Amino acid sequence: MKRTTFANWPCSIARTVDLLGDWWTPLVLREAFYGTTRFDDFERVLGIGRNVLTQRLGRLVDADILERKAYQQNPPRYDYVLTDRGRDFFPVLAAINSWGDRWLATDDGPPVVMEHASCGHDTTAEVVCANCGEPLRLADVSLHLGPGYPERHRAAALATGRFRTPD
Amino acid sequence: MKRTTFANWPCSIARTVDLLGDWWTPLVLREAFYGTTRFDDFERVLGIGRNVLTQRLGRLVDADILERKAYQQNPPRYDYVLTDRGRDFFPVLAAINSWGDRWLATDDGPPVVMEHASCGHDTTAEVVCANCGEPLRLADVSLHLGPGYPERHRAAALATGRFRTPD
Repeated sequence: MKRTTFANWPCSIARTVDLLGDWWTPLVLREAFYGTTRFDDFERVLGIGRNVLTQRLGRLVDADILERKAYQQNPPRYDYVLTDRGRDFFPVLAAINSWGDRWLATDDGPPVVMEHASCGHDTTAEVVCANCGEPLRLADVSLHLGPGYPERHRAAALATGRFRTPD
Repeated sequence: MKRTTFANWPCSIARTVDLLGDWWTPLVLREAFYGTTRFDDFERVLGIGRNVLTQRLGRLVDADILERKAYQQNPPRYDYVLTDRGRDFFPVLAAINSWGDRWLATDDGPPVVMEHASCGHDTTAEVVCANCGEPLRLADVSLHLGPGYPERHRAAALATGRFRTPD
């Protein structure tokens, strides 16, 4: 059964989750952030099936999140290396990780701790307003339609009452 | 076929993605952040099957991300309302959204824009170091085992070379 595709929804969350495809993908990305580049290493560390891994790596390459770099010609073998777009997903995983640390850790505390080399301290990820730097909270935001919202769907979207009408 | 469970991995990313279950779940949460509380409204706006929606809402209730509040007794009908844990997931979705805006938007620009009422400006989510406030970048972090990493797995984890040994 083909799953529902979210790729063309006018919503960056839906597009992103569609691109990731399933929950193995963030874990493959986590491995890439740990420095893993080889198929066999992804397979061994994650305990993921080879056919599933092939599919997920291929999807990440198609999406320009990883790129293949040959390290051997005969037979051809590749490193899977993060692109700029892929590296830019790290903060998202860091935000997921911090939420999990806050709400899903055992009483012992977080399993893994991140140190920020720039400031020299153990830290966690915090999501803030890019403009004022204050933590972003649901209660403090409102949404309006952006320039990329399809014209033919704008009236219906505004009718839901969830978006502020243009000023 | 039962999918692989990540719930007990010593990794807050794996635990979080296990809890979410599949990609419908972040979109159900997105709707909750938009203010949707009724089963029929989730169904209508997302175009999700009723059995899938029932399962996803039940999972979010079990995980203490949503709670059921009766608004009618006979027959019983419920609002699905965000808990503190659920509201705290908003910054994660905001970070996903910003990444999608940066890398997956059409040439027209982002489909939806967030305004931060606290500062009065259109904004995006930024993920920063909770200690120094600088943007978190992969190149600037290192990881070490935390107190919640299972004792019996610590030696093997250190042997992978991905975690700094204790100071």
